[in-house]
Amino acid sequence: MADEVILLDFWASLFGMRVRIALAEKGIKYECKEELWNKSSLKSPLLLEMNPIHKKIPVLIHNGKTVCESLIIVQYIDEVWKDKSPLLPSHPYQRAHARFWADFVDNKVYYVSRKVLTTKGEELEAGKKEFIETFKILEGELSDKPYFGGETFGFVDLSLIPFYSWFIVYEIFGNINIEAECPKIVAWAKRCLQKETVAKSLPDQKKVYEFVGQSRKRDGLE
Amino acid sequence: MADEVILLDFWASLFGMRVRIALAEKGIKYECKEELWNKSSLKSPLLLEMNPIHKKIPVLIHNGKTVCESLIIVQYIDEVWKDKSPLLPSHPYQRAHARFWADFVDNKVYYVSRKVLTTKGEELEAGKKEFIETFKILEGELSDKPYFGGETFGFVDLSLIPFYSWFIVYEIFGNINIEAECPKIVAWAKRCLQKETVAKSLPDQKKVYEFVGQSRKRDGLE
Repeated sequence: MADEVILLDFWASLFGMRVRIALAEKGIKYECKEELWNKSSLKSPLLLEMNPIHKKIPVLIHNGKTVCESLIIVQYIDEVWKDKSPLLPSHPYQRAHARFWADFVDNKVYYVSRKVLTTKGEELEAGKKEFIETFKILEGELSDKPYFGGETFGFVDLSLIPFYSWFIVYEIFGNINIEAECPKIVAWAKRCLQKETVAKSLPDQKKVYEFVGQSRKRDGLE
Repeated sequence: MADEVILLDFWASLFGMRVRIALAEKGIKYECKEELWNKSSLKSPLLLEMNPIHKKIPVLIHNGKTVCESLIIVQYIDEVWKDKSPLLPSHPYQRAHARFWADFVDNKVYYVSRKVLTTKGEELEAGKKEFIETFKILEGELSDKPYFGGETFGFVDLSLIPFYSWFIVYEIFGNINIEAECPKIVAWAKRCLQKETVAKSLPDQKKVYEFVGQSRKRDGLE
């Protein structure tokens, strides 16, 4: 019996993109069910049933079994379809190292990115500073390697690259020149985008810009 | 050559306790280096060198290599010393399920526990309500199983049981009767404490009470 794989997703979600990339890397066919953004009253009954604790996408439904939380889903995909394109390294120390940096992206990078988009005035200035410092830490970790894990695209790259599709909004709304501040990160992102599995999983930056602009207007930030 | 294992720790740390339990479950001998609590100016040069990003315990140093963040350390220990007392299940779906609940403990349980200890008045009342709701969710997940993963002590148990040594402070400072609200959780905790690996890794509740009481006085909460 062929695997039945369903992804509950939203096109602009940084976390959904991770799962799309992992599924593409493994060459898994799946059905995507698009949810609406972050509106509790408009969440689908299927999402509420499948992720009753967090009520958030992405959710992977594999042969009727549910897996939630993007990095947990990606590790699940890597463990189930282990013969193709390994995402986590095989050595325990390197695995721990990859998990550490993916966790840093999940917490610190997500926090500073939100801060840049949801604050004004002094708070925004502090957020910009923290945003640049955070990406400079990542640039230090990347160093001169082509990918975070070394020679091949892996878990940390997959965790971080979705933010590239949002760079335009941090640059415009946060007034940050990311390429001038972190040229190695931008070069790394362009390298990742040369992979079809990544390119086809990320939305167009302009579409993200329009979407975020509308949200900010609704939230009184514009 | 025997493994050299060093743990940078602090006796009252919920996160340090997890690593102590994992090391005890695997029967690993290690040297513990005790840090001072949460005082940036008093952090040891070794801690700052070994965890320059977060500057936090616990840190595991295994044959000179550093692993940070408690759940990442526990997974590392489980992967390196895999022949004894497996902590994560072997099936990918069950592993994802365990990671989901450990993540819930790391985020939601830690958040509501802090809220109960660091707020007053209306905010504290909201925190108490959220604390009880959160532990009731865990009680629902535990159901009638002896441990979260089923018949044996595992990853989720290890993630949550350290909070039991702090229950006294949530009960006294938050005015919450945890046993009345969540009897299955307290029965589960007592079951875990029957394991020597757990009992010897958790501090005495009264010692935690004195420590937290002093911190709260310093912070003007008493």
